[in-house]
Amino acid sequence: VDSYEVRAIGRVESPLTDLADAPRQGDEGGPEATLVFDDAVATALADLRPGDDVLLLTWLDRADREVLVVHPRDDPDRPRTGVFSTRSSHRPNPIGLHRVTILAVDGTRVRVSDLEAIDGTPILDVKPVIGPER
Amino acid sequence: VDSYEVRAIGRVESPLTDLADAPRQGDEGGPEATLVFDDAVATALADLRPGDDVLLLTWLDRADREVLVVHPRDDPDRPRTGVFSTRSSHRPNPIGLHRVTILAVDGTRVRVSDLEAIDGTPILDVKPVIGPER
Repeated sequence: VDSYEVRAIGRVESPLTDLADAPRQGDEGGPEATLVFDDAVATALADLRPGDDVLLLTWLDRADREVLVVHPRDDPDRPRTGVFSTRSSHRPNPIGLHRVTILAVDGTRVRVSDLEAIDGTPILDVKPVIGPER
Repeated sequence: VDSYEVRAIGRVESPLTDLADAPRQGDEGGPEATLVFDDAVATALADLRPGDDVLLLTWLDRADREVLVVHPRDDPDRPRTGVFSTRSSHRPNPIGLHRVTILAVDGTRVRVSDLEAIDGTPILDVKPVIGPER
């Protein structure tokens, strides 16, 4: 198997500390949080502005990478479903994808809305949302 | 720096073979391609169906991870911009994000539309699109 190394470029600071409070990607809502980036990537984020809608990629470090099938939303009444058809955090490469709006930027600290990620979650990337569906 | 290992779970088969033909994420269009998954993840993709819109995550293995600032779309007339405000493939963690529609599924071979990724690109994950903007 070919593998590659991803590196944390920062961490999420969030009031969410319990996995049960933020178990799923793709849900609506979530609290405000702060993205605390490493100084090494300061120039990469220098053009982020309040009001920007961005896609935040994280590493879901508490996920179980061996899980391939789940009951969606942990609901036993829903039929078991292959993880690539769900937003379960449990998947072979547990990369979280979160759409957030930037509220404020203070150096390498970026305040965002509606982030369902627990405190300390490693940050991998930020990308602009392009078009209504990206 | 904390780092994590991502593993290729399959590869893109595409008529695109030249980086110059597919330099950027987030553009419109692109040819049809086939996602060839490893047998080990067959159950994870068993619920993908033709017509599903999904987000494909790839590893852009030709990217330069040291680049933090680019001219968007390689256009020297555009001002240099931090990569987190662009879809440049060059970024600290070069994870590609592609929205595609599934055209056909044949075992672990999944045919998709409009994929701007070159032949052989490693696949990391597939997620459903949730809502019009995710």
